[in-house]
Amino acid sequence: MPGDDDVFLQAAIEEAEKGRDEGGIPIGSVIVHKGKIIGRGHNRRVQHGSAIHHGEMNALENAGRQPASVYKESVLYTTLSPCSMCSGTILLYKIPKVVIGENRTYLGEESLLQSRGVEVVVANNDRCYELMQEFIAKNPTLWAEDTGEVEVKA
Amino acid sequence: MPGDDDVFLQAAIEEAEKGRDEGGIPIGSVIVHKGKIIGRGHNRRVQHGSAIHHGEMNALENAGRQPASVYKESVLYTTLSPCSMCSGTILLYKIPKVVIGENRTYLGEESLLQSRGVEVVVANNDRCYELMQEFIAKNPTLWAEDTGEVEVKA
Repeated sequence: MPGDDDVFLQAAIEEAEKGRDEGGIPIGSVIVHKGKIIGRGHNRRVQHGSAIHHGEMNALENAGRQPASVYKESVLYTTLSPCSMCSGTILLYKIPKVVIGENRTYLGEESLLQSRGVEVVVANNDRCYELMQEFIAKNPTLWAEDTGEVEVKA
Repeated sequence: MPGDDDVFLQAAIEEAEKGRDEGGIPIGSVIVHKGKIIGRGHNRRVQHGSAIHHGEMNALENAGRQPASVYKESVLYTTLSPCSMCSGTILLYKIPKVVIGENRTYLGEESLLQSRGVEVVVANNDRCYELMQEFIAKNPTLWAEDTGEVEVKA
């Protein structure tokens, strides 16, 4: 029987798949407060022409304005290791735990998070990895843009 | 005669004043590439019910999708010391220089930015400080929410 982390990571994967089906970057996220999803999101770089709507940011935005106490009791699930923007946001709102689908495709700021006391769990989920590998094979430039690396306007 | 930094900080202050006039938190930002403003923004927590549109994030979003080379040659101006979310975003996009209006009201992640090689200039601008002090005196709870500290739903 799957545990809570598996169930919520699966919800993040469903968001990643939604993003892929929209032609976007397949990274999804959910924010969970006391066993309930309060925000779902996926990367919207392509769909909204956005520089800031990574999956995690989109989930937090969709959760709306929450009191600090809610963030401090929440867990953020994301299909891919969080970049410095998303990690900084986790620190701003003092989210105590992050569950990461995979960090083989991209290793974000996990060390920074841990150094500030955030619990970081890496699930090594094959589906998360496959989604990214399939996407990058088809769209290498777009992926590079999302990590701040691409040198040409996408 | 004012230097470039003064001119662009003034543009960020005008954004902060726009935010105040809309009933929002008076923090503004502009992103400047080779002497030209490519994105302007201000905090939209109140106006858009946003958890992620701090002034700096809003300026970056309004600049649209830019190639990595543009960010790497840009300067971000902000009326207030950038929090961990906005600092993480500066790191993601490798923005090499940040000009900060003031850091007396709130000291963000300046040390982290400097440790990663970002040039941090603090202008100690009185107008930036006054705008925040006037706002906080009138709206202490709202300000606490923006820094992830407030315990009640605003």
